[in-house]
Amino acid sequence: SGLVHVKNPHLDLMEEDILYHLDLGTKTHNLPAMFGDIKFVCVGGSPNRMRAFAQFMQRELGLAGAGEDVADICAGSDRYAMYRAGPVLSISHGVGIPSISTMLHELIKLLHHAKCRDVTIIRIGTSGGLGIEAGSVVITDTAVDSSFQPRFEQVVLDDVVVRSTELDKDLAEELLACSRDIADFPTLIGHTMCTYDFYEGQGRLDGALCSFSSEKKLEYLRRAYDAGVRNIEMESTAFAALCGMCGLKGESCRFHSS
Amino acid sequence: SGLVHVKNPHLDLMEEDILYHLDLGTKTHNLPAMFGDIKFVCVGGSPNRMRAFAQFMQRELGLAGAGEDVADICAGSDRYAMYRAGPVLSISHGVGIPSISTMLHELIKLLHHAKCRDVTIIRIGTSGGLGIEAGSVVITDTAVDSSFQPRFEQVVLDDVVVRSTELDKDLAEELLACSRDIADFPTLIGHTMCTYDFYEGQGRLDGALCSFSSEKKLEYLRRAYDAGVRNIEMESTAFAALCGMCGLKGESCRFHSS
Repeated sequence: SGLVHVKNPHLDLMEEDILYHLDLGTKTHNLPAMFGDIKFVCVGGSPNRMRAFAQFMQRELGLAGAGEDVADICAGSDRYAMYRAGPVLSISHGVGIPSISTMLHELIKLLHHAKCRDVTIIRIGTSGGLGIEAGSVVITDTAVDSSFQPRFEQVVLDDVVVRSTELDKDLAEELLACSRDIADFPTLIGHTMCTYDFYEGQGRLDGALCSFSSEKKLEYLRRAYDAGVRNIEMESTAFAALCGMCGLKGESCRFHSS
Repeated sequence: SGLVHVKNPHLDLMEEDILYHLDLGTKTHNLPAMFGDIKFVCVGGSPNRMRAFAQFMQRELGLAGAGEDVADICAGSDRYAMYRAGPVLSISHGVGIPSISTMLHELIKLLHHAKCRDVTIIRIGTSGGLGIEAGSVVITDTAVDSSFQPRFEQVVLDDVVVRSTELDKDLAEELLACSRDIADFPTLIGHTMCTYDFYEGQGRLDGALCSFSSEKKLEYLRRAYDAGVRNIEMESTAFAALCGMCGLKGESCRFHSS
């Protein structure tokens, strides 16, 4: 049917669904009228960048109001920021898995309540590249954990549930084909490694704590490269797992800046 | 000596330390002049709330400029917001462990570079209470994970390192004593459970995914209560582990709103 599906039998029994962190709700807002025609959702860490992206999409799509400021749909909450440009929704998710996961639960319910169909979700942003040219974009085929495994471990109450982190292969190929139409836009498909922190988990030598040598760091990153990892960030496994379970066609494209 | 200590031998060899997510650095800013007299650091999830807290501290301390707006010291970055009121620094940390951990690494280095002494760090904010009166404040004695254990598992490259999550007991008692001077300010000391997400990990029945029954949720929360847990949030174990390792006297006080 192309609808976004929630997997929660309790939701149907609720009189009202409040999307706390987005400052939206089923009784306070007409979600189908506000969002029913959304076809693309782009998510990224920084609120300013997601506003700039919405403004860019407004210009690209030749929409009325292009060049003007866009309003933050979640202005009543400072946890996340949300903008729209025609059929494109642009939302910030903050730093790390718990932050993106809280937002995605509410976004998925939003798309479900709004009866959106055939929604494609793309995560955009920066990442640390691995053995690739600076300025490259990595399109993720599979998100992997710090042991290079394609899995996301979700704690449900006190059980650990393992979820798949495959992303949409056709969408990845489609995005790669798009990149070929643009000159000087180095783009590749590869695995993306997702960590729980920016410093110790990613082999950085400049955190407040660092217990490993430069050699040990390089040896780890080499093993990651050999396992197919081409970039490192902090949200992809949860993104892939949640979108996959709820029928959202998802992809992750990250820019490696240096 | 009361100094904040980093545990990273590489830092001394670096010519410049850039605190990326705070938009500060050792070459671009005179950190001892800007922050050397800081004695208290308060951290919380929401940027707006941390600005309001800095303004509140300005009034409470009778500082010049009280009632006026405060400037965001990290205005060049939209990842975190930082304000100061006299010897008090007020910083937002976003949602979840990876988000607070990225900020704390850079905050700890900031306090180290600034040569701050005898710094107390207090996390403030909201949380879900467990078997306590709405409106209560929980002062954390120990942060525990979803199995009610006082530990934080940090992935370092691909090794898992287990860290202690004890907080400063004297500081907890001191804060409790302060609360007693205020009428109608229900405050208690207890364990705080830290989870990796807001929905499935905290037994919420209203996420996009929910695979457990209301009974199973209640049974889990009852076990948590019996283990001494009085509130649930998403950052305390990483906060306790990082502050403890770097010689920061730390506490967490969370308000249970409903």
